[in-house]
Amino acid sequence: MIVVMKASCTEPDIEHVLIFLENHGLSGHPSRGVERTVIGVLGGVGPSGTPGVIGGINPTLGEVLEGLPGVESVLRVSKPYKLASREFHPEDTTVTIDVPCVSKGYITIGNHELAMMAGPCTVESEKQLMTTAEAVRKEGAIILRGGAFKPSTSPYGFRGMGEAGLKLLGKARSAFGMAVITEVMTPTDVPLVSEYADILQIGTRNMQNYVLLDEVGRTKKPVMLKRGMSATIEEWLLAAEYILSHGNRNVILCERGIRTFEKVTRNTMDISAIPLIKRLSHLPIISDPSQGTGRRDLVEPMTLASIAAGADGLLIEVHPNPDEALKDGAQSLTIEQFSHLMPRAQAVAQATGRAFVTE
Amino acid sequence: MIVVMKASCTEPDIEHVLIFLENHGLSGHPSRGVERTVIGVLGGVGPSGTPGVIGGINPTLGEVLEGLPGVESVLRVSKPYKLASREFHPEDTTVTIDVPCVSKGYITIGNHELAMMAGPCTVESEKQLMTTAEAVRKEGAIILRGGAFKPSTSPYGFRGMGEAGLKLLGKARSAFGMAVITEVMTPTDVPLVSEYADILQIGTRNMQNYVLLDEVGRTKKPVMLKRGMSATIEEWLLAAEYILSHGNRNVILCERGIRTFEKVTRNTMDISAIPLIKRLSHLPIISDPSQGTGRRDLVEPMTLASIAAGADGLLIEVHPNPDEALKDGAQSLTIEQFSHLMPRAQAVAQATGRAFVTE
Amino acid sequence: MIVVMKASCTEPDIEHVLIFLENHGLSGHPSRGVERTVIGVLGGVGPSGTPGVIGGINPTLGEVLEGLPGVESVLRVSKPYKLASREFHPEDTTVTIDVPCVSKGYITIGNHELAMMAGPCTVESEKQLMTTAEAVRKEGAIILRGGAFKPSTSPYGFRGMGEAGLKLLGKARSAFGMAVITEVMTPTDVPLVSEYADILQIGTRNMQNYVLLDEVGRTKKPVMLKRGMSATIEEWLLAAEYILSHGNRNVILCERGIRTFEKVTRNTMDISAIPLIKRLSHLPIISDPSQGTGRRDLVEPMTLASIAAGADGLLIEVHPNPDEALKDGAQSLTIEQFSHLMPRAQAVAQATGRAFVTE
Amino acid sequence: MIVVMKASCTEPDIEHVLIFLENHGLSGHPSRGVERTVIGVLGGVGPSGTPGVIGGINPTLGEVLEGLPGVESVLRVSKPYKLASREFHPEDTTVTIDVPCVSKGYITIGNHELAMMAGPCTVESEKQLMTTAEAVRKEGAIILRGGAFKPSTSPYGFRGMGEAGLKLLGKARSAFGMAVITEVMTPTDVPLVSEYADILQIGTRNMQNYVLLDEVGRTKKPVMLKRGMSATIEEWLLAAEYILSHGNRNVILCERGIRTFEKVTRNTMDISAIPLIKRLSHLPIISDPSQGTGRRDLVEPMTLASIAAGADGLLIEVHPNPDEALKDGAQSLTIEQFSHLMPRAQAVAQATGRAFVTE
Repeated sequence: MIVVMKASCTEPDIEHVLIFLENHGLSGHPSRGVERTVIGVLGGVGPSGTPGVIGGINPTLGEVLEGLPGVESVLRVSKPYKLASREFHPEDTTVTIDVPCVSKGYITIGNHELAMMAGPCTVESEKQLMTTAEAVRKEGAIILRGGAFKPSTSPYGFRGMGEAGLKLLGKARSAFGMAVITEVMTPTDVPLVSEYADILQIGTRNMQNYVLLDEVGRTKKPVMLKRGMSATIEEWLLAAEYILSHGNRNVILCERGIRTFEKVTRNTMDISAIPLIKRLSHLPIISDPSQGTGRRDLVEPMTLASIAAGADGLLIEVHPNPDEALKDGAQSLTIEQFSHLMPRAQAVAQATGRAFVTE
Repeated sequence: MIVVMKASCTEPDIEHVLIFLENHGLSGHPSRGVERTVIGVLGGVGPSGTPGVIGGINPTLGEVLEGLPGVESVLRVSKPYKLASREFHPEDTTVTIDVPCVSKGYITIGNHELAMMAGPCTVESEKQLMTTAEAVRKEGAIILRGGAFKPSTSPYGFRGMGEAGLKLLGKARSAFGMAVITEVMTPTDVPLVSEYADILQIGTRNMQNYVLLDEVGRTKKPVMLKRGMSATIEEWLLAAEYILSHGNRNVILCERGIRTFEKVTRNTMDISAIPLIKRLSHLPIISDPSQGTGRRDLVEPMTLASIAAGADGLLIEVHPNPDEALKDGAQSLTIEQFSHLMPRAQAVAQATGRAFVTE
Repeated sequence: MIVVMKASCTEPDIEHVLIFLENHGLSGHPSRGVERTVIGVLGGVGPSGTPGVIGGINPTLGEVLEGLPGVESVLRVSKPYKLASREFHPEDTTVTIDVPCVSKGYITIGNHELAMMAGPCTVESEKQLMTTAEAVRKEGAIILRGGAFKPSTSPYGFRGMGEAGLKLLGKARSAFGMAVITEVMTPTDVPLVSEYADILQIGTRNMQNYVLLDEVGRTKKPVMLKRGMSATIEEWLLAAEYILSHGNRNVILCERGIRTFEKVTRNTMDISAIPLIKRLSHLPIISDPSQGTGRRDLVEPMTLASIAAGADGLLIEVHPNPDEALKDGAQSLTIEQFSHLMPRAQAVAQATGRAFVTE
Repeated sequence: MIVVMKASCTEPDIEHVLIFLENHGLSGHPSRGVERTVIGVLGGVGPSGTPGVIGGINPTLGEVLEGLPGVESVLRVSKPYKLASREFHPEDTTVTIDVPCVSKGYITIGNHELAMMAGPCTVESEKQLMTTAEAVRKEGAIILRGGAFKPSTSPYGFRGMGEAGLKLLGKARSAFGMAVITEVMTPTDVPLVSEYADILQIGTRNMQNYVLLDEVGRTKKPVMLKRGMSATIEEWLLAAEYILSHGNRNVILCERGIRTFEKVTRNTMDISAIPLIKRLSHLPIISDPSQGTGRRDLVEPMTLASIAAGADGLLIEVHPNPDEALKDGAQSLTIEQFSHLMPRAQAVAQATGRAFVTE
């Protein structure tokens, strides 16, 4: 950490900062330039939850320092996340998902193999789910997506079938030999959802629902953490750090678009987040072009772009009859459109030296 | 709702839309222009949670329609919130807070009187809280703020004293005759926090934590709902609608800054949200210049601006010794700075024909 | 255009709108619903520069209507741009660039062939330019980029070599058989820059410099129009419409990242703009991953993503010694990095059924 | 400047940086921590336009350094603007405008007195302008606004009356004893506009039109520089620095709203920019609530908020008959609304110890 003093700061201001640092178990090393004094801070001792102990990555100390008299700004040198960083863990993380019903008994994500996760936005009926699952499995999707508990911006929207939806997901899983990913919205639902899901999804609105992050961190289930709709990369990795810090290392990230001023698309997909996460972190990253664009006609090109940029998998909404979808119909592919997409996705994967896991 | 067809749409596309509408209990009225056909939709029947019944404010139907062949876009005519709208409830809502320890036995928010809510960001110790409460009460604050459960971007940050902090808030409430506002972060904590708080605060990260909104909606406690850090005004009012739709009409909104590209301030306060909420809704609105700017030196001018723009109250962080604050020290006022602010705030209130509630 | 009246509007309000429309040569068709009246507007007569004549795409009338008593909002049905729209011109536009020094005598952009534009951010010296041009030409770039007039955020930054830089570009063009693209910053420089450039570049800061757009519109030179750093897709196409409306149909668009809250990258590349432009417009679109990310390590993955998404070409900064670059060194590739990128770019192009123009 | 090295950097990487700095006339002082090495940079020599000389505020060097091997990031310590900064010029700047036709012969902006600038968005006719000017002068506006050259997002919109509009402004100026502010859009128009205007306005789309900034910098005319619609505070002050660096010290800033995700307002007014500019700079700052909100009903509350936050003046659109305005009718006040606003604005000014200049 580096404390930059104002040009107008006084010697007592500098002394004040040095004493403050000492009181927090740190040492300050002032360097007096012609225009300005800067103070290097040494002694950070790593992550710690104890409020009194201020470590190198404690986010609080910097804020307090910024408020001291004579201080212009505080520059952080270390990254505030550790377990999620590539510096801490240089090799790529591979998340292994136990799936008794697939041939090998497990699926891996984050390897050179890509995972296709497809299915309806929301589980609506047995027929809808089974038709979709069968079709996407046949085309090469190995993981079935489908919402049983759904966040809805309006209290009058459809909020999902709940446990009945989970049961249908379990049925499709066995029937077609797929893993299941579905969202969990509140801490008390974690045990129930874990019974049916192979991967727990944390939705964009809950990226900073810390009590929920704590709870899924205490399980060993793979967790897919969607980026908050206006979260910085750093905040996203800090949310992953919540889960990791409880001992659950099976964290997968998912880029799903961020909020910008553009109105023609529902969100703006930050495709650069894919290679950036690969540099800053060791965690696998999935791309969601359905939520990311909100437009069916953009799903295929954005799928191809995500693969070319290095994504470890895709999350795509498919509905046998999007006209009748209870949610997000405009962004769901038909089964035909999904069949059109898959070989193109495979071709781009191959051009970048990779291939989709298919069993 | 109005369905705008593409210039290139065919008659069968139009027929398809008309039949789709009929199947959902609505009627479509096409108007064929030279360049384009638009279809007016009649028959919306108001809010309804039943998935099959598509009402005027059902958010789903429009999305599905946008995906039909030949459809260019769907234009919504009605607002998607109802109970929160001024059209539904033309008079200003006044929220009454029962506070046995103040002289009248209650405080009202949303009247011509302004409420000053002040106190530390986080409850850290009995001494810190009691000193601050006594001082801000003396200067004219009638409501004490202070976090016992704190969201922290980093898992290594301070997350609050929990129940011990709530007890200290209860003690300060009795000692100085103030109401208490404090945050609740997860549904299972609602009963506990309600024991000590006169107003439940929903933080910015939880604005779309729907299970939590449902839960506070089922109480009768006043709820202050902070705007999500990238929430539109419409999404914010829809979050309020969640609480209102469960029967709790004691909802207060709080503007706390939105996320933009600007880096010098922590957030960009959207002061225009204050008069805008007054036009679109009947709910009271509070301004939080501490979180809204993240800079102590901007709290006073932004307090004055909020009052001039019509805010019903302020939420301000005050700490007896900001250098030692465990959270957000850089944006907390000292007690002296708060004393400097109050008469200036009162002068601007008076210039706009209002005054602060002081007992 | 559709005028949506407030729920509380009166009959005289509706009459007022109808008379207003009539006074502007339009006819209004009210449709009275249970909750609300909407008024369809007919009679728009297409683009017209004459202030008094209000056409279907005149941006002014809607704004005025929104201010009339009883009016809730005005919904535009037609797109405000015409010459740039795919509805007006369904086939892809191919821009032909006359380049006597290449073997065919011309290069086309917007065909199934992709164009690689590479070179230094800024022309700094003969040696720097010639070395770079020779190297990128050898690797497959057919168009040389290089700034002679450079916008600089600070008045103390390097603003380019001016005419001397143009002359060096002209020299490299002949020496290596390439086309040249370079920026023009002000209307009076258009004739001079046109002497040396095969494509005139309009930079992001000048996307709405209308006097400059008018001026390049009056030439026949191909123009590459960069997206403004916070421009919507619609504003960008309207800026293209300025150039097209003067009779210059050789317009190429360039996505170069937009401004968001993210701080780790210089801009956020909106890759979805590439397929979106292909749907809304017939104009070719180029991607600039150097400016778009500001980070050398992201240029290759974002190049591949752009190609997969359907871009018609790339604009990439290459410098023989980025450590010594006078501008934007951090985002320039070395020649070695560019050599690494080209075969990978070609592989992804091939996977999507396309190939780079190389002569 | 401080160079932060990666945790994984090598000694040769550090040596490389030190030699690089030496080659640019600077000295690097490495400080080797447990986790990381940081290098303090000394020797910056202030603003300089010569490309070879890298000063403390040269924006280029940092970018190049960020690209060197082993470098994590470069932290700037000094502000990149100098003449615009309060550190350089601690006292408030007062801009004096010579106006022979007002009683004192001049008007000052940036003093404790506030300036009201009012008038139509666009000059449309003699009658429209004279009626408006007379009315706003009577209510207390001392400066007349009105556009003769207008930027229009669409090429089919109204672009102003040009020189005929300027002549009408000149006529109104003499008739009612007001100063005139009007926009200049391109360098070659500066002499013409200067004949009629007392203050040259640079519009939001031209904030980074550097050739135009250079040109107005070479005059002695007061210049009002609007904030770019997505400009950071730093970029805005750097644009002011362009004008100041040519010797024109009569620069006034104008906050006019920034672009965010919110759709209900045209822009989001950044009221916090007002007190922030007062801290970072010595230049006067004006607020434009008409453009800033795009909604007539928000102009009055945002005017009051701006004054409370410390603005030195207001820029407000007034039209005798907004229904007939050729531009921006929805955000123009009627004369009656302006008459309603003025006494309220004066009351808030008085509550903050200030008053409007009225002659």
